[in-house]
Amino acid sequence: MEHSKYDFGLVGLGVMGRNFILNVADNNFSAYGYDLSEAQVKALEVEAVDKENVKATTNVEEFIHALKTPRKIMLLVPAGKIVDHAIENILPLLDKGDIIIDGGNSFFTDTDRREAYLKEKGIHFFGSGVSGGAEGARKGPSIMPGGDKEAYAHVKPIFEAVSAKYKGEPCVAYLGPKSAGNYVKMVHNGIEYAMMQLTSEIYDLLKKSCDLTNKELHQVYETWNKGRLQSFLVEITAEIFTQKDELSDADLVDMIMDKAKQKGTGKWTSQNAMDLGIPVPTIDMAVSMREISALKDERVQADELYSRPEVAHIAKEELIAQAEQALYFSFIIAYSQGLHQLSFASKEYGYDLDMSTIAKIWRAGCIIRAGLLADIAEAYTADNSIPNLLLSPSFVPKVQDTLPAVREVVAFAAKNGIPVPGLSSALSYFDAYTSTKLPLNLIQAQRDHFGSHTYERTDRDGIFHTEWGKK
Amino acid sequence: MEHSKYDFGLVGLGVMGRNFILNVADNNFSAYGYDLSEAQVKALEVEAVDKENVKATTNVEEFIHALKTPRKIMLLVPAGKIVDHAIENILPLLDKGDIIIDGGNSFFTDTDRREAYLKEKGIHFFGSGVSGGAEGARKGPSIMPGGDKEAYAHVKPIFEAVSAKYKGEPCVAYLGPKSAGNYVKMVHNGIEYAMMQLTSEIYDLLKKSCDLTNKELHQVYETWNKGRLQSFLVEITAEIFTQKDELSDADLVDMIMDKAKQKGTGKWTSQNAMDLGIPVPTIDMAVSMREISALKDERVQADELYSRPEVAHIAKEELIAQAEQALYFSFIIAYSQGLHQLSFASKEYGYDLDMSTIAKIWRAGCIIRAGLLADIAEAYTADNSIPNLLLSPSFVPKVQDTLPAVREVVAFAAKNGIPVPGLSSALSYFDAYTSTKLPLNLIQAQRDHFGSHTYERTDRDGIFHTEWGKK
Repeated sequence: MEHSKYDFGLVGLGVMGRNFILNVADNNFSAYGYDLSEAQVKALEVEAVDKENVKATTNVEEFIHALKTPRKIMLLVPAGKIVDHAIENILPLLDKGDIIIDGGNSFFTDTDRREAYLKEKGIHFFGSGVSGGAEGARKGPSIMPGGDKEAYAHVKPIFEAVSAKYKGEPCVAYLGPKSAGNYVKMVHNGIEYAMMQLTSEIYDLLKKSCDLTNKELHQVYETWNKGRLQSFLVEITAEIFTQKDELSDADLVDMIMDKAKQKGTGKWTSQNAMDLGIPVPTIDMAVSMREISALKDERVQADELYSRPEVAHIAKEELIAQAEQALYFSFIIAYSQGLHQLSFASKEYGYDLDMSTIAKIWRAGCIIRAGLLADIAEAYTADNSIPNLLLSPSFVPKVQDTLPAVREVVAFAAKNGIPVPGLSSALSYFDAYTSTKLPLNLIQAQRDHFGSHTYERTDRDGIFHTEWGKK
Repeated sequence: MEHSKYDFGLVGLGVMGRNFILNVADNNFSAYGYDLSEAQVKALEVEAVDKENVKATTNVEEFIHALKTPRKIMLLVPAGKIVDHAIENILPLLDKGDIIIDGGNSFFTDTDRREAYLKEKGIHFFGSGVSGGAEGARKGPSIMPGGDKEAYAHVKPIFEAVSAKYKGEPCVAYLGPKSAGNYVKMVHNGIEYAMMQLTSEIYDLLKKSCDLTNKELHQVYETWNKGRLQSFLVEITAEIFTQKDELSDADLVDMIMDKAKQKGTGKWTSQNAMDLGIPVPTIDMAVSMREISALKDERVQADELYSRPEVAHIAKEELIAQAEQALYFSFIIAYSQGLHQLSFASKEYGYDLDMSTIAKIWRAGCIIRAGLLADIAEAYTADNSIPNLLLSPSFVPKVQDTLPAVREVVAFAAKNGIPVPGLSSALSYFDAYTSTKLPLNLIQAQRDHFGSHTYERTDRDGIFHTEWGKK
């Protein structure tokens, strides 16, 4: 007898795809995988050898016909043209009402284009960010779906089953129409860039000014991960310091080249924030630092040309305590900037995002999961309309208390030639954002002086221009 | 007898257009203006009442037929669709070999599109940045033309005559094919954003920590303008502090709202630098600060929620001397970042830019003109291939000497709650760019840990991946 039809289809059986489909099967939904590559199909068959509810094929017709309607087909393929090819490949075989889910990091305007195109053909399209890496896909990722609200009912039971859970609550929720899901995932990644940069700056600071060994660094990050800095990134950082090189018995972290790559989502976050007019300088700086890191040859040349101050050595315990505060402060700023962008984008693009829902589905499964997100979820539950987390009453004491230490650390790093661009951008951002008066009146005066660009006044409404220099 | 045909045509008789055409006429080229608006045509006729070689019309056929062939027609209209409309308006009346010059701040990919479109029709198209504001247009701007090299011969005599002169050398030169001219102007404006932001931060610092009056600030900037900081922006800043409000007799600068507007060229510079992978964090930060300045209501709210340290008062002379060094250092960094982007874009887009030529034509006429540009021109004349000004031997001592003061100023500002995001981004950039080793090995370890993104090693070539945590 033929197997009854399958609950879920997955296109793209790379590591992420295979892990996701096994996760679906673990949760008692039958799943069918499809890939052009025989090898990937075989790899899944091996991994799923003990599972009766998983099958895979290189035959697209067999794949489509095996699925229950409305079909729920997830694409886990690289962003870009490949997504369009994958869609065109299955589209002629689909029925009206079927659902395609793009689980990759597609650029949000591509998602809007695809959603509109498929809507005309009666197909629902969901851009759904998935975060958590390969392990998250296998054991429970955070999933960020956006698209047609009614169609989401068909996907919901599966996504809620496979997603990560935070105290029993699934880390997935319908976020909004069109590209809302991809957009939220993009900004998630922007925040991730900033948090990774900040974590690495603090590592540099501790190492250079206290000569901490990797073992001590492991202990510092491990201890931090038990406190208010508890987070996936701090957790894996602690683990990284203990990893030995297979060949040399050295600590592996010391053998890794200091050139950081990027796949573009952090850059997109920064570029789009600029289009929206929302400042995310710590994310921008994280992007810049990956770029500077890649310019290794220039850095080596430059290092030979300039001399740098001797780093003053300071008491370990004191610096570690200050560094903890600096990291906590700057993590808050990274979230604040990203969430600020999301609040604004929500209006600009009509996503109508619920900010507390976003914070909640980030509490587990995703790369930026952290204890702090429970506090952030509470802040937005109390008031979804705050434009910036820094304006939430519950965050004021958290931030205020760290400031003396943050100021010390930034000043110390500046004097001692240790680059902390992310941290110092976070402090500058804070100091500017909390200033009733900024010196940009001078910039408006300059603009009016050389370009007749006009200015507003503090004492009355209107637009003014002055013939400067003619008294 | 009919007037013989005119040397130069200009479309768009706003202030910039009228000033430019009067400048052309002053230099003994006959010029014909065209605008849809009768009022603008009249305005030019009034301003040109004593000039026989200037005429204007609202009749496009009369305009085109009055010009010598190959026609040289400059558009000075707002960037965007209006440029396309202006082109379509005259295009049917043109002959092969005619030349259209776009003198506005068009986005460079628009210029590439227009250049290719018009080439098919046998028309040469020049994207030519023009900097210097209304006064520059009248008395001599810096002009940055890019397009067909042979066609430039027809435009050259006019542009060289009307441009600003630096010790007799015209501040205009053919820069490269396609959108080279618009691209160079875009980055010029990015540098301008950074320099304006830096100037305003130093103003804030001097005012807050030494209570300098506007009169004293005027003296400080005026003195600086006689030294190595000599520049248009420092010069007009000095002048701005002396301007009285017409109505209240207060100093006008104090009545201007601290919300800075932008027209997009700084943003484009940052966004495109990210596409190229070239770090320009001080330009990014200047863009962010304009955005933060615009969020006045949020700033006022935030200011009420947080307390800030009392600013320590320090000796005026000492701070002024340190501030001068900080401004000099950060101006160098602003140029370094922008020129780094230009060097890279030159290869990426096939512009084949001569960096010393760019520095030379910026020495007078444009908004970022400064004594420093003579030094920069010399550095690139010595070696056009240096990727970054910081690698030029002649700049090493200039930068190195300022560092102790820069470090003091950034540390002081951090401790005292004065936002100096531009300056501190400049220092962080310097400290990172001159570091042989950055802590981004940790970021690569993190990326490989959660996403199997692989890493390079310091001890041998290849691409590596580790199963982290499995010892």
